[in-house]
Amino acid sequence: MNPQLDKAGKLRHFLTTEFLPKEILLQILDTAESFTRVTKRNVKKVPLLRGKTLFNLFFEASTRTRTTFEIAAKRLSADVVNINISTSAQSKGESLLDTIANLSAMHADMFVVRHARSGAPFFIAKHVAPHIHVINAGDGSHAHPTQALLDMYTIRHFKKKFDGLRVAIVGDITNSRVARSQIHALNILGVSEVRVIAPKTLLPVAIERLGVSVFYDIRLGLKDVDVVIMLRLQRERMRGINLPSSQEFFNTYGLTIDKLSVAKHDVIVMHPGPINRGVEIDSSVADGNSSVILPQVTFGIAVRMAVMSILAGHSI
Amino acid sequence: MNPQLDKAGKLRHFLTTEFLPKEILLQILDTAESFTRVTKRNVKKVPLLRGKTLFNLFFEASTRTRTTFEIAAKRLSADVVNINISTSAQSKGESLLDTIANLSAMHADMFVVRHARSGAPFFIAKHVAPHIHVINAGDGSHAHPTQALLDMYTIRHFKKKFDGLRVAIVGDITNSRVARSQIHALNILGVSEVRVIAPKTLLPVAIERLGVSVFYDIRLGLKDVDVVIMLRLQRERMRGINLPSSQEFFNTYGLTIDKLSVAKHDVIVMHPGPINRGVEIDSSVADGNSSVILPQVTFGIAVRMAVMSILAGHSI
Amino acid sequence: MNPQLDKAGKLRHFLTTEFLPKEILLQILDTAESFTRVTKRNVKKVPLLRGKTLFNLFFEASTRTRTTFEIAAKRLSADVVNINISTSAQSKGESLLDTIANLSAMHADMFVVRHARSGAPFFIAKHVAPHIHVINAGDGSHAHPTQALLDMYTIRHFKKKFDGLRVAIVGDITNSRVARSQIHALNILGVSEVRVIAPKTLLPVAIERLGVSVFYDIRLGLKDVDVVIMLRLQRERMRGINLPSSQEFFNTYGLTIDKLSVAKHDVIVMHPGPINRGVEIDSSVADGNSSVILPQVTFGIAVRMAVMSILAGHSI
Repeated sequence: MNPQLDKAGKLRHFLTTEFLPKEILLQILDTAESFTRVTKRNVKKVPLLRGKTLFNLFFEASTRTRTTFEIAAKRLSADVVNINISTSAQSKGESLLDTIANLSAMHADMFVVRHARSGAPFFIAKHVAPHIHVINAGDGSHAHPTQALLDMYTIRHFKKKFDGLRVAIVGDITNSRVARSQIHALNILGVSEVRVIAPKTLLPVAIERLGVSVFYDIRLGLKDVDVVIMLRLQRERMRGINLPSSQEFFNTYGLTIDKLSVAKHDVIVMHPGPINRGVEIDSSVADGNSSVILPQVTFGIAVRMAVMSILAGHSI
Repeated sequence: MNPQLDKAGKLRHFLTTEFLPKEILLQILDTAESFTRVTKRNVKKVPLLRGKTLFNLFFEASTRTRTTFEIAAKRLSADVVNINISTSAQSKGESLLDTIANLSAMHADMFVVRHARSGAPFFIAKHVAPHIHVINAGDGSHAHPTQALLDMYTIRHFKKKFDGLRVAIVGDITNSRVARSQIHALNILGVSEVRVIAPKTLLPVAIERLGVSVFYDIRLGLKDVDVVIMLRLQRERMRGINLPSSQEFFNTYGLTIDKLSVAKHDVIVMHPGPINRGVEIDSSVADGNSSVILPQVTFGIAVRMAVMSILAGHSI
Repeated sequence: MNPQLDKAGKLRHFLTTEFLPKEILLQILDTAESFTRVTKRNVKKVPLLRGKTLFNLFFEASTRTRTTFEIAAKRLSADVVNINISTSAQSKGESLLDTIANLSAMHADMFVVRHARSGAPFFIAKHVAPHIHVINAGDGSHAHPTQALLDMYTIRHFKKKFDGLRVAIVGDITNSRVARSQIHALNILGVSEVRVIAPKTLLPVAIERLGVSVFYDIRLGLKDVDVVIMLRLQRERMRGINLPSSQEFFNTYGLTIDKLSVAKHDVIVMHPGPINRGVEIDSSVADGNSSVILPQVTFGIAVRMAVMSILAGHSI
């Protein structure tokens, strides 16, 4: 049984893109598309979550991601309570389950959870009351499904389809929850090839089993791709790994106009942000014509609105 | 003159349960009961405080309590501004009165105040403009009246009455603002006996004057009680007191199924949270059939909504 | 070209009072006057900014100023997102422009920016998308235009006019963004004389060019003035300057009843707050009949509502 689905097969929690039916991913993308129209109106609010309370539970700080969920929830007219857990109850020695039970008892309707430990949002989802929905906003190096879905939205927006596409993900695959969620989503949505491009030290063993082809040479890996997804080099996550200097990394794997020239002429370049200019991506690419990095951010609001609405029982 | 009441005897500030007329406590409980029905509806908002601005002034950090007030205020459609004073104006050397005068000048309607110094909310209430209402969210070891009222609500909910009840409060009475506010409320509402159970080092002198019977032995103290209220062992508050280790404390005063067996068969067990499992309460009790700890949290929202509404001139 | 105005001469950003047409300053004051009536109503909200998202971007902490903008925006029914940048993306090495571009992509409508570097809000205004409006909430020692406008509102409220008035600004002129913005506004609005009173060490060179007369002796400077504006002695801003002790400063420049006695009998005393009692102002003056320090705070909400509304295309 998929812990994200209820008995009728509807989305109850949104924890990972893995094992989700294609129909649910498409439902999220289609619902998000209707919200993109909302965000273009002069008054951007819809009352779908009026009277609902959403808790942003950030066990790991992230102003940017927290903000996108806050904006999405407010556009749906929800009440939002931001809780930075590292500085609160946990420091009084309360267990995670007791914290969650208490917040649930305050009539929470939705938890958006970011946690440094892989699996924490699953653990929480397993223990909440039946009416509460959990959204994973990034857990360890495991999953970041709303980021992956906004990436899928961006690809569909610019490419109009998934079949036949060749997509390359470049950089620190080992530590990237974003990459994992993207790989699952891309395969479910039926692109023709997912490539990962990285040095061996940044590639988990047996990554091929996820349904990807592996390239160590970026010039081979980018050949004829329709989409390039650059990953942020999360230096803070890498400890004890023999990583070259950021200058060396840039020389070998950093995306430049030159390296990108082997891709299709209408290639789009994506990045989950925040970008490290001159480390994984050159400014000429980040700010160039192929870049869709800022549209990704905009679509992120609509996709998060869609996930929240569907969990609350509303979809297009 | 009671500083909490206006000339007509209506509640103007909510600072302590001491000296409050029974009618006002019952008015809060009855109003809260009507809000419990609101929180069960699909859309949980009521417009009673629309256009009003509530400031959460936390001179002492407490995510949990601050959150319950924030949720309660938002359900009443108020605008909520959270201010953590320790990190703001006070650090620029501004006096408490100047801070309050400035916030008042911003057209505040209600201040929820938590402060490490006993009496601070009274001092503030004494100096605010006539249209401003002050709610004490915990001051030093003095009072925590909304916590006490949600406890009264919980007792009435499960026991349907106050008269004839025997209630035991167990633990660190000396440092507990919760215990003081509970003792006053229980006596005003007319339970038949309030017991305090603690070692001598955690009992203030002359506690009997508050209208309680004292027990040093928990097995004697729990005999035939209808309600047990466990207090959190606030180790951070105790300095220079010869406290036994937490294991010793648990052996002597920690609530276990075994110790609880001398209480009435339908006893309820309460705790203001966050609980220290294995220190003041055993998990088998905290998670057992007698525990009403999570309903307390839920009722806390409704009780805080009730207090705010009554202060703003609305009651059932 | 004035970067604050669009081609039609309408206010697009509000960054400084310098070079603004008198009509725009008066438009802000008149619009604020209509909002003063709103804040007196029982329900204080107006829907002018419903569906708009305002970001409070504070690169320098200020609870008080942030709070007034938050309250003003909520009264206009905007959604408010508070971002303390020092603790967020900037620490991940993202550039200011990338941070701004990302927030803009989240469909922000307005940025309220406080920054320790003079000019930062101009830099941001220069790079935002055309639909986004920037309000300067204080940049370095350069400008603080909403503070200046609330001061102008206060003067007009109590004096009914600007022409013929003699206004003295006392204290640390060198480091005061407030003073600069006041001097420009007072001259644009046509008071008859602006005086600055300070020791030489706290006066920038060539200050006369801004259109002020300079006094080193407070008793000469206050003679026959209609308005006294005291500045906060920002000790945290002064490094390496040979400042006398605060007691010495108080003796020479601190405002007392005695020193004030040479001003006009109906003089008003203003201060941007938070005040240092006994440093730049005596309590007998701060709390006395001439003081309009608290009305300034109240008018500050209405003035900020006015600026936001005008930027969003609404004015009286």
